[in-house]
This record gives sequence, C-alpha cells and structure tokens, in this order.
Amino acid sequence: MKEKITKRSDDYSRWYTDVITQSKLADYSPVKGCMVIRPNGFALWERMQAEIDKMFKDTGHQNAYFPLFIPESFMQKEAEHVEGFSPECAVVTHAGGKKLEENLIVRPTSETIINSMLSKWINSYRDLPMLLNQWCNVVRWEMRTRLFLRTTEFLWQEGHTAHATYEEAEEETVKMLDVYADFAENFMAIPVLKGIKSEAEKFAGALHTYCIEAMMGDKKSLQSGTSHNLGQNFAKAFNTRYQAKDGKQEYVWQTSWGVSTRLVGAIIMVHGDDQGLIMPPKLAPNQIVLVPIWKDESSKNDVLNPANRIADELKKEFSVKFDDREQYSPGWKFNEWEMLGVPVRIELGPKDVENESVVMVRRDTGEKITVKWEDVPATAGRLLNEIHDNLYNRALKFREENTFIIDDYNSFKDRIDSEGGFYSAHWCGSRECEEKIKNETMATIRLIPMNQEKENGKCLYCSKPSEQRVILAKAY
Amino acid sequence: MKEKITKRSDDYSRWYTDVITQSKLADYSPVKGCMVIRPNGFALWERMQAEIDKMFKDTGHQNAYFPLFIPESFMQKEAEHVEGFSPECAVVTHAGGKKLEENLIVRPTSETIINSMLSKWINSYRDLPMLLNQWCNVVRWEMRTRLFLRTTEFLWQEGHTAHATYEEAEEETVKMLDVYADFAENFMAIPVLKGIKSEAEKFAGALHTYCIEAMMGDKKSLQSGTSHNLGQNFAKAFNTRYQAKDGKQEYVWQTSWGVSTRLVGAIIMVHGDDQGLIMPPKLAPNQIVLVPIWKDESSKNDVLNPANRIADELKKEFSVKFDDREQYSPGWKFNEWEMLGVPVRIELGPKDVENESVVMVRRDTGEKITVKWEDVPATAGRLLNEIHDNLYNRALKFREENTFIIDDYNSFKDRIDSEGGFYSAHWCGSRECEEKIKNETMATIRLIPMNQEKENGKCLYCSKPSEQRVILAKAY
Repeated sequence: MKEKITKRSDDYSRWYTDVITQSKLADYSPVKGCMVIRPNGFALWERMQAEIDKMFKDTGHQNAYFPLFIPESFMQKEAEHVEGFSPECAVVTHAGGKKLEENLIVRPTSETIINSMLSKWINSYRDLPMLLNQWCNVVRWEMRTRLFLRTTEFLWQEGHTAHATYEEAEEETVKMLDVYADFAENFMAIPVLKGIKSEAEKFAGALHTYCIEAMMGDKKSLQSGTSHNLGQNFAKAFNTRYQAKDGKQEYVWQTSWGVSTRLVGAIIMVHGDDQGLIMPPKLAPNQIVLVPIWKDESSKNDVLNPANRIADELKKEFSVKFDDREQYSPGWKFNEWEMLGVPVRIELGPKDVENESVVMVRRDTGEKITVKWEDVPATAGRLLNEIHDNLYNRALKFREENTFIIDDYNSFKDRIDSEGGFYSAHWCGSRECEEKIKNETMATIRLIPMNQEKENGKCLYCSKPSEQRVILAKAY
Repeated sequence: MKEKITKRSDDYSRWYTDVITQSKLADYSPVKGCMVIRPNGFALWERMQAEIDKMFKDTGHQNAYFPLFIPESFMQKEAEHVEGFSPECAVVTHAGGKKLEENLIVRPTSETIINSMLSKWINSYRDLPMLLNQWCNVVRWEMRTRLFLRTTEFLWQEGHTAHATYEEAEEETVKMLDVYADFAENFMAIPVLKGIKSEAEKFAGALHTYCIEAMMGDKKSLQSGTSHNLGQNFAKAFNTRYQAKDGKQEYVWQTSWGVSTRLVGAIIMVHGDDQGLIMPPKLAPNQIVLVPIWKDESSKNDVLNPANRIADELKKEFSVKFDDREQYSPGWKFNEWEMLGVPVRIELGPKDVENESVVMVRRDTGEKITVKWEDVPATAGRLLNEIHDNLYNRALKFREENTFIIDDYNSFKDRIDSEGGFYSAHWCGSRECEEKIKNETMATIRLIPMNQEKENGKCLYCSKPSEQRVILAKAY
C-alpha cells in the first residue's frame, strides 16, 4: 500500500523528500516554510541532542534559556549583524491586543539578547570564562525552504561564551569546531572537512567563522556546523566589560557556535539509499529490530518465547524494537524497518527455533548471517560497530572520489556543472573573484582548509598569485 | 559580600524574588515579562524534564515538534478557544521585510496547529490512539508577571492525544493527571490535591479540565498541572476524523495536558526557607556537596586525597559537587550551598581525617552527624530518602494545618483575608456565586475534589442546596 520512494538516480531531490515523508520523519506544515518534526524524526534529533549536550557539558558548558523575543533596537547595535539578519526577521508588532511601543524580533540567533544579560552578570575577571549554551527554536524568514535543511523555524543549540583574552576565545572557537567534527564523524558517521569561511561567507558580526562541511550523496556540500570568534564586536555594542586583575575595565572576547536540525538532513543524504534511511548505529533510535515469524497459532509461542528472551537480553545493551504486530506480514515489516533505516534486523522463525539460531541482517550491506542464540548480543555489538565504520568509510571514499584538484577555470565551470563534487582550487583572496565564481557557476568557497601547507599558485579566476587552496562546491 | 535574603515572615513575595536572583536561578530580561533562566535554574528544569519525559514515554507517548507560529484563522476556528486566548496573543505581522498576508500568532498553546496536522495523519481507527507530546516555548501576553510563576514566555510540555471514543479520552485525561500527581509527590516532594476545574476556570475549548493544586509557603494555591478532556471540539473545528471499524467517518476524541517552568516556582515556595532554596533530593542537580577543609599547604593533600576518593565513590550513585575552590573560605561555601539548597553537605577537615570520618549535614533540618568513611555512601542514600520524605511530610502537614472546613460566608471572608489557606466549602454550582465570591474575596474555586462522597449542604454564598464541597483559596 506504500508509495514507492523515487530513485536517487532519477531525482535526488525528490528521493530526499520521499524518504522524509514516507518514513514519517517530518511533514510540511500549513505555516509557510515551517515543518513539523514527527516522532520518527524527533527521536533521532533527541538522540543527537543527548550526545552533543553531553559533549558540551564535558567541556565545561552550562545550559541556560534566554527570551525568544529581541527588542528591535538590540539588533541594530552591531552594524554587520543587523545588515546580515534584518532581511530574514519575523517581527511581532502587536501583543495583548495592543500595538507594541517597540517591535520585537523573533530571535534568528541570540548574540544580542545574551550580551544584554552578560553585561549585567560579568563584572570581574573572576566571572570569566562564562560558558553557556542554549537549546531552542530560531526563526529566519527564508524564501526557498527544504525539509530539515532550510526551514523558516528550526531547532538548534547556540553556544555563547565570554573570555578575558582573544587567545582564549580563539581556543574555544576551535575547540567547539573540534567537538562538532568529533560528533559528525564518531556519531553521525559523516566525514567532515574543517576550515575557515571567507569574509563573504562568515557570520554577520564575527571576526571569523570556522565550519565543518560534509559531502552529501549528490556531491553537494552541506555546512554542518559553525563556530564563530566574535572578537569584541558584540561586547562593544553592549558594553560587556570586566575588571581585569590590574583593575582596568576591558571588553570581553566572545564566541558563538551552533548546529541545528539540518544535521538530520545530512544523515538522510549521506547514508540513505533507494530503500530509504540508514541510521548511523550510535544515533539510531532503534538500533535493532527483532521480527518473530510464525505460521500458525500452534507455532506462535514456540517462536515468541525465545524471541522475547533474546530481545530482553539485547535491551540491556542496545535500543531494541520488538515487532510482534499481527496485522502485518513479515515481508511488510522487513520493508518498513528497512525504510526506517534500523541498522540490524533479526529474524526468528520456526526453523530458526529448531536450530537455536537467528538470522541477522545488516541494513547497510544487506548481508545475512545465521547466529546461535548465545552469540546474538556479542554479534549485535560487533555488527553495529562494523556498520558505523562502513558508513563512515564509504562516505569518506565517496567524498575522496569526488574531490578534485583544479587549476583551470573553464574546466572547472564544465565539471562543477556536469559532475559536481568538491574542487580544490587556488584563490587570491579577493571578494571580487569569489563573487564572480559564484555568479558564473553557482559554486561557493565552502572553506579554506585548516592547517594546510603553504602552496604557491595562481587564482583560479584571475590568475593573480595565491598561497592557498580553497574548497569550491555547490551547497545546500 | 552577598546581600541578605529577605525573611519570609517580613515579605514573602520579596523573599521569593531574593531567593531566585541571589541563587542565580533566573533573572529579569530587557523584554517586558520575559525572564532568563540561568544555569542554576535550568539545571533543575532539565532534571524535571528528564523525569517527566521518562514517565510520558513509559505511558506510550512520543515526542514531536510543531511550528511556533499559528495562522490567525486557525485560532478562530474554535469559538471558546479564540475567546480565551486572543487577548493574550503576540502577533507577527511582518516577516522578511514584508507585511504578511495573514498574521501569525506566536503559539500560546498548540491545539489548533496540531489538529491541522492530525486531520491529515489520522485516517483509520488503526491510527488511534495517537499519543504525542511536545517540549517547547509558548507565549501569553500577561499584564502582571512574576519570575517562573507567570511570564510572557515560558517553557512547558504539552501532550496532545487523539482517541476513538470519549471513554478512552477520559481515561487518558485522568491517567496523565495521575502522572503529574505522581511526579509532584514522588519527585518534587510536593503533596497535591487532584480535582476538576469549574466551568469558569476550565481550559478555553475543553469539555472539562482536571488539575493538581499545591499549597505554597504563604498558604496560596498554585495550579501545578492541568489535563483537559477536549471532547470533539477541536476535531470538529479541524475536521479531524477517522474511519471506524464499521466504515463510518467519526470525529476523534482528544486530550491535552501540560506542566511548565512554573513548577520551579513551586519547589522554591514549598520547600525554601530563610536561608534560601531546599532542593528535593530526587531532582537536585547537585544532591551532595563535599567541602574539603584544610588549614595550610602541608595538610592540604592529607585532606584532598581522601576527599577525592570519597567523592569518586559517591559519584557512582549520586550527583556530587566537589568544592575545593581556594578563593573562598569553608564558611562562605557552606552559606553558598545552603542558599542553593543542596540536600546533603559533607565536610572533611584534618581532624576528620584523623578519625577517618566526615561530617554530614542535612539541608532540611540542619542536623549534623559524624560518619565513618566506609559508611558514607550508604548514609548518603539514607539521608537523601529521609530528606525527601521529610520535605513531603512537612509540606503535607502544613497544608493540612491550613485547610479548613467552612460553612459560613462571613467567617470565610475574614479568614481568607487574615489567615489565608484552603477552605472546603459547599458550592451550588452556579457561575454567579463563583464570580461573586471571587470579586468579594479574591479567592477562587481551585478545584472540585475527585472521588469525594456525596454530602448534602448549602452553598457558602447563596445557601441553595449543594451536594459537593469545593476548595477555595487565593492563588498565583
């Protein structure tokens, strides 16, 4: 009765939407550009939140909650910030039946409102560093939206920290980028490039922005997390100062960093296939599904009893779905759990009972193995690890096979259009060349890789001398 | 250096605000009526969320996320609903630099937007029951606000369920009320009354509303959770129907239920004393604080080594703060942790090292005991249980001592004003009497107790026949 999922090779964009709607991760809402995250999607986001939140706490951050609304005048205090965000703002003009004296902006990000509080809370160097994080919804009025990747309202976390020196802020900025890369690679099983954004692509109000970028299944890039060194820009706008050890009043140095529900989109696009989702084992809401199979009432208990025992054993270590629904056939269930991307499926029928074994099926490769009952938990653990590694390695291989060194602009123009992929090219550093490349090819500078060796070359566009390569790609 | 907390007996309302601001639970924000939840307050809310969320999942509910914005026309589809909520709405009229075609309401509650989705998702009786919950922020434009208890924006959870029959919806409504009562009593250590709201006090759009009410330290009542049987009101407004087994199209029966950050206020007011907070042990972000005490550098390690060992041992079972900060004196730390309400304090100085013992201090009674090192974990567990029980029992005793049966209106008028408290009185059921009592005394019908025996009497106000007593009190 289910609709078919469009094949990736037929229409990648439609495949993406089909997977989301048919696996009930999310749905379109009646509010333009806003989505509804359905239980299947929210369960994944909750798993992601739990793991990232733990990493934040392990690095000394505390959660807090700041208001949804920002007075319009606050947004205007930092010149670049207001320029960058004003066009995307949703504005509350009336409340409680009256016109407001001052309009309120629905937060697109919280640097301004948070600084208004930090300027009150921070007095002395003893109050620093102040390491805060907030999980919340934000609103950016987007013209073209896409489920998870770009929605008018989205869920995210935004870290906000204040430090005594530039160096400490810079260290924090890079540390949190590393946390994001760690999370992407070790939980999402998605390899990422780390680097710095060009001036044109940095956060509005930051000194500079670091980012992680990942290659999606259609060879486009997805910005998957950003970490900003804000310098003293917001501190000066909000007079956020501290008394240093020498008694002088100094502005604090700040950072902010965020990841959002768009990461759910990354998981779909990097790992998914024509059958649907493939959940990375460390974040899968259901790591294992156990499907008991019986022919008639007489054999039912012979199957259900050991199946229940095995499920209970597995539940001590893993998140397990026990699917004994009677209204669906085993084949229907297999398809369903395949579409939902459960990493390991266990089948247990009358014949398996005779042999005291089960059949275990990997979602990533389809490989089936027969496993003795007593070996099921250990095998499940091994398979989940292997699936994680395989998902990561095949995503890495895919990215490497589709990353090219390029030095000729005409060839680049052709190939970015016909083949797609990541292109490592020299760039002179001028905003003009960056803009022309963007206008002529739709590709943008995704990042300037970190820690790269100096290399002399010529700008892909203008041929002027360059000392660095950048990654060019089309992006979501 | 700290400011004194106002005594409860001097000014209860100021005591409440002092406790919140000095223990850094929350702060006023520059946006009228909105508060900032600081890390100390948010850590408590996170603990509360974790426990309630587990209870929701154990009763079969799944989390989801619906849009922040609700089209104005949606609010108007249910007549009572729009009448109840319109005066409190914040309205987005402009976004992306343009006037919107239709105004968007910032959700004050999500029945309407959720029904617009349910009407799409629910087709057959097989889709029922649908048991959803959402953790989110909501906005209600309040004239008079108070930290945690009543703020323009607040955090809450809202459960939304759809069922095939009235009976199932009613069962769910009561079940979730019981979950709230269970949470209040067994985690927050706050005894609650369970009952049903009068027509005047019910949720705008519900058939009827159940609630739990708790007595605060000033003998006022706090509505601490509500559970609504929505009947088919929203289903009819949004055409949320399912095909029954017999093939007929039927409207679903619905419930909604919520608790919010105001519960943090309840914890402060029920348990707190003139020294500050007292955290209920099962929700305390820090259950135990260990303060090592040393006189000079030579004795420092003699103390820190066993202190660390004990802390590590305790951390296996409890959440423990190890406070070895050097810039503060032990006395300063004791005051600090007392104000923050940590249930058990452990002191370990050079003399304790000699005796291989520690001093353990209860926050609720101030009682100090000397405990041998090997007995510390078991004693900590016992003390935390005893503190929970003591907090609950003394709150219950306080409520019982301040709950009165009353049959004379003039006496009621005097006493509600001079003594406060809960008053059990006969009520004829008319909205007129209810309103007059409210206008003349500021007291409202908090609830009609559940499962009470029929009792013949006369209405407190009009003396007409009554078969039930209700609880009257002033409330937050």
